[in-house]
Amino acid sequence: MPDGQLRVTFEPHGRAVFVLAGTKVLEAAARAGLTIDTPCGGQGTCGKCRVRLSGSVCAPAAAEREHLSDEELAAGWRLACQASICDACVVEVPDGSLFASQHRILEEARTAEASEVRPAVRKLHVELPEPSLDDETPDLLRLEVAIGPVTAGIDLLRQLGGRLREGGFAGTAVLANGSLIDFEPGDTTGACFGAAFDVGTTTIVGSLVDLTTGREAAIESAMNAQVRFGDDVLSRIKHAGSNEGLDELRATVLGVIGEILQALCRAASVGPEQVYELTFAGNTTMQHLLSGIDPTQLGHVPFVPAFGRSLTIPAAELGIAIHPRAAALIFPVIGGFVGGDTVAGMLATRLVGQDGPALMVDIGTNGEIVLAFDGQVWAASTAAGPAFEGARISAGMRATAGAIEKIVLDSDVQYSVIGDVEPFGLCGSALVDVTAGLLRSGIVAPNGRMCRPDELGESVPEGLRRRVVLGEGGQPAFVLFEDADRGGEAGGGVAVTQKDIRELQLAAGAIRAGIAVLLKQAGLSAGDLRRVLIAGGFGSFIRRSNAQRIGLLPPGLDHERIVYVGNASLSGARWALVSTKARRRAEELARLARHVELSQDANFQMEFAEAMIFPDA
Amino acid sequence: MPDGQLRVTFEPHGRAVFVLAGTKVLEAAARAGLTIDTPCGGQGTCGKCRVRLSGSVCAPAAAEREHLSDEELAAGWRLACQASICDACVVEVPDGSLFASQHRILEEARTAEASEVRPAVRKLHVELPEPSLDDETPDLLRLEVAIGPVTAGIDLLRQLGGRLREGGFAGTAVLANGSLIDFEPGDTTGACFGAAFDVGTTTIVGSLVDLTTGREAAIESAMNAQVRFGDDVLSRIKHAGSNEGLDELRATVLGVIGEILQALCRAASVGPEQVYELTFAGNTTMQHLLSGIDPTQLGHVPFVPAFGRSLTIPAAELGIAIHPRAAALIFPVIGGFVGGDTVAGMLATRLVGQDGPALMVDIGTNGEIVLAFDGQVWAASTAAGPAFEGARISAGMRATAGAIEKIVLDSDVQYSVIGDVEPFGLCGSALVDVTAGLLRSGIVAPNGRMCRPDELGESVPEGLRRRVVLGEGGQPAFVLFEDADRGGEAGGGVAVTQKDIRELQLAAGAIRAGIAVLLKQAGLSAGDLRRVLIAGGFGSFIRRSNAQRIGLLPPGLDHERIVYVGNASLSGARWALVSTKARRRAEELARLARHVELSQDANFQMEFAEAMIFPDA
Repeated sequence: MPDGQLRVTFEPHGRAVFVLAGTKVLEAAARAGLTIDTPCGGQGTCGKCRVRLSGSVCAPAAAEREHLSDEELAAGWRLACQASICDACVVEVPDGSLFASQHRILEEARTAEASEVRPAVRKLHVELPEPSLDDETPDLLRLEVAIGPVTAGIDLLRQLGGRLREGGFAGTAVLANGSLIDFEPGDTTGACFGAAFDVGTTTIVGSLVDLTTGREAAIESAMNAQVRFGDDVLSRIKHAGSNEGLDELRATVLGVIGEILQALCRAASVGPEQVYELTFAGNTTMQHLLSGIDPTQLGHVPFVPAFGRSLTIPAAELGIAIHPRAAALIFPVIGGFVGGDTVAGMLATRLVGQDGPALMVDIGTNGEIVLAFDGQVWAASTAAGPAFEGARISAGMRATAGAIEKIVLDSDVQYSVIGDVEPFGLCGSALVDVTAGLLRSGIVAPNGRMCRPDELGESVPEGLRRRVVLGEGGQPAFVLFEDADRGGEAGGGVAVTQKDIRELQLAAGAIRAGIAVLLKQAGLSAGDLRRVLIAGGFGSFIRRSNAQRIGLLPPGLDHERIVYVGNASLSGARWALVSTKARRRAEELARLARHVELSQDANFQMEFAEAMIFPDA
Repeated sequence: MPDGQLRVTFEPHGRAVFVLAGTKVLEAAARAGLTIDTPCGGQGTCGKCRVRLSGSVCAPAAAEREHLSDEELAAGWRLACQASICDACVVEVPDGSLFASQHRILEEARTAEASEVRPAVRKLHVELPEPSLDDETPDLLRLEVAIGPVTAGIDLLRQLGGRLREGGFAGTAVLANGSLIDFEPGDTTGACFGAAFDVGTTTIVGSLVDLTTGREAAIESAMNAQVRFGDDVLSRIKHAGSNEGLDELRATVLGVIGEILQALCRAASVGPEQVYELTFAGNTTMQHLLSGIDPTQLGHVPFVPAFGRSLTIPAAELGIAIHPRAAALIFPVIGGFVGGDTVAGMLATRLVGQDGPALMVDIGTNGEIVLAFDGQVWAASTAAGPAFEGARISAGMRATAGAIEKIVLDSDVQYSVIGDVEPFGLCGSALVDVTAGLLRSGIVAPNGRMCRPDELGESVPEGLRRRVVLGEGGQPAFVLFEDADRGGEAGGGVAVTQKDIRELQLAAGAIRAGIAVLLKQAGLSAGDLRRVLIAGGFGSFIRRSNAQRIGLLPPGLDHERIVYVGNASLSGARWALVSTKARRRAEELARLARHVELSQDANFQMEFAEAMIFPDA
């Protein structure tokens, strides 16, 4: 972990995140994938977002004194929208403080996960009878009497005799998928970890999991350094076809994964050799690249992946320095552009088998859409572009310290920043906020065109009007702040440009068009959807009203049925790590889904053209 | 194959051997593990050993003209004891010409093998529908629709897409134990081979098997070059403990195996990459050494092997250049000195489950003894020494061209030689013959002492008497021939020395004592045995009467119940190669056997002392 980051664990969900001092509890919870209900919009006026902190707690704000008694404050109760993290702490989130639908989904998932902590890797401490003239049982068979039948690789078998004798025939057997992968001196049953990864085109997130409890021990993320070869999957596929391109891309993504693993181990004080298994959920191209499989077939019609069911690759083959006999599970894929990350998301959200039609939209560099209804599943992918992750946006950045993550436009601009630092860019959720605000204020027209300063109507408040400027090439831009205002040099600052609005318009339009095509295939309309799950690792949650305002979701959708579920891909990868049953379910889900090829769908082209107009307010 | 060797295939058994021109059919059959019945002792007088040759056939001898009509001779019928091999040919052996018990055993085994040609490796030629926009099934899944669910290693998966497209989505899938190990262009289903090995302390024999039919395509043998580190397992174990000793021993045995494989492939015109699996049956130490497992624990009490059940090791890990994803199966072992070769022998001879008590004696550098009765199995090993394989014998050699393989002592010495060459040594079966003859003639006393020339009784024929000389250190020796007699230099020649007799006495005594201990444990006497199977790769068969005369087998045993079954270890390894069911049975047999530790058995020491006296005639 970078210096100065504080560990915050949310209970009873067992999720941990690292944040900078000064981060609001509400923000930290969002980063842990927990949506705390804030009917007042986080103004501290409704008092609904009660949480209880243990450990060091900052002094309460005025709004908190209003809603909480002295006894409650003394017991650590605070409002999530007001209280800031001032030191490592545990935050208890009562069920009533969670956004209702999310509470139900998470609770279901948590119950399922807890009852399913049956990882592929397990440890058994044994004390065996020593050999004697009356008992010359072979070493491995002697161990099998205690642990059941196993296979053992020849490299371990070469060491087993020595290990058994050094430890006086006691020690800890490490089993993975029916194989003996190690025999460790002493009782090491308490130290058994795995790591789950969501491998995105732009962002990679890793989670270290204690396999004995199924709980997360650390979480880390980093930019996918492959972006230097192009920021979308098609440019990566093209580069993979060049001389040594595949090797380069593979080494790059595995390098980042290795660094994340090191950071995870440091954060949780876990030795890399105590990490015995990995799971990887990523889009089909990312999974091909990290496995070293040429993705060329994914670059042209027909789009054919190399594999459908999951793959198991030795971690050593990936050059990842964890336990030398650890394995890596690569998630099953649905099709060329609907990959293991979508399957993992379906797994985590239990999308299939819900009452009534359910939709999942996973927003990353691509937007994957899955519709489940009546035992059938349709899945599609849209090349939404990386706008939601802050890429291709002039002042865009990932949702890390220094990113504006929330923006409110009324008479002027208000924003909040991740971490106790000066802002220097904005992440996806803020881009959605500002675009919705610009649409509402009339600065941006429904067709996506930003007014020039001389075109602004009278109704636009002065606090906003003065921020509209003519930038490069005479294109208008909306200035959030200028460095000069803060004592920095003139000319710097953060603005949202016409081009940024176009990027978002394209991204949101593609997703909305995809949703429309899937609904049509299933013979449904938006109003039929009982549940709409928004997943994505784009940092903070996207506010439902703003998501609808920019046309990310179709009109006619009941606002109450939209739930932000966080990084569902990572959750699914983590679940597969702790449950062999979940792995089998992932295989089933991947094969159940029907891959709808939007790029070849005439309907989609029409819907896309239509969706390029922002909806009316 | 060395130049000048001729391939002889025996039908209907499907066994092939390579012999030099001039080799008697009887000898060739013995090398193929087939004992042809010769009631007259191979003198050509009884006419029982009828066989039919196709291909080039030598002119019939006088004895053959007596017993066979002109029509029969024209049709290729000959007497096995008279006819010589003059070119590559197929020899049909009628059931009536086989030694009765052997016929039954081989017939049972052949029937079982034929009904069990279900190897772990199989090939399927497929023609798949090509991908289209309506069918974007992933490559591996597309193949699985045709061949059923498989796993595939990442290295193959990296190539699969290219292979499928190069072949227009047609080709041959190679499956091994549920894994896809290759996808070959075209229809290669006809070319699917495996190799089985009997890895002895002194001799290594390999058999190339056509996995589509279960038939042997070639057989080759070579000296285990590890002998330069000592000729018994204990000296090898000791050397393995020295600096780099294990690596040296491993590289040495694997080097010989690699050479045998090359010779097998050359002999059968098979490409090494068409060999998809290996099986290895050897004693416990050999199996440890070739697997690269430190055998130190086998060198002292308690004698504990590293593994009991079979091992599977990638052939590439063994550095053997066959198919790059081929696997090697190492046989399950019973105990420290009763290894996979014994299990393979039990498998091949179907020792367990016979009517009444059955005994198998496998004679190699060690003598392994297995007694099966009433669902129970006792197994033991004696350090017989390599005398039966010609080692530690002054003029000893393996049963290859130039070896005297049979000796008759009456008024003088008669012998037969393997191959159409001058003899230059004698193999194990000849040593047994000559020792039995010397005992009968009184030249060697029951206590094993050879008379000096001046001690010979009047009853010793002059033709034998003149052959007894005083050799090195004043010790007597029996001269078989002198080079001077044949125009060579004086002083050379082949003799059997007092020391040679002592070596054989020790070897035979150890085995007989072992048999006595096992019989005692089972509460049986020699007369109770319904079947006694003599196995061993020592070339020609050991003549039953002579084996009893030198005390290799206990007195009181019915002569008719003794059967020579050839290299049963190799047969078992071959069977495991063609039948997964046989593999499972091998595992069961290994675990069923009770390991009797003779070296620590007081009874054995007593029996051994007793068995050191040759039995009375």
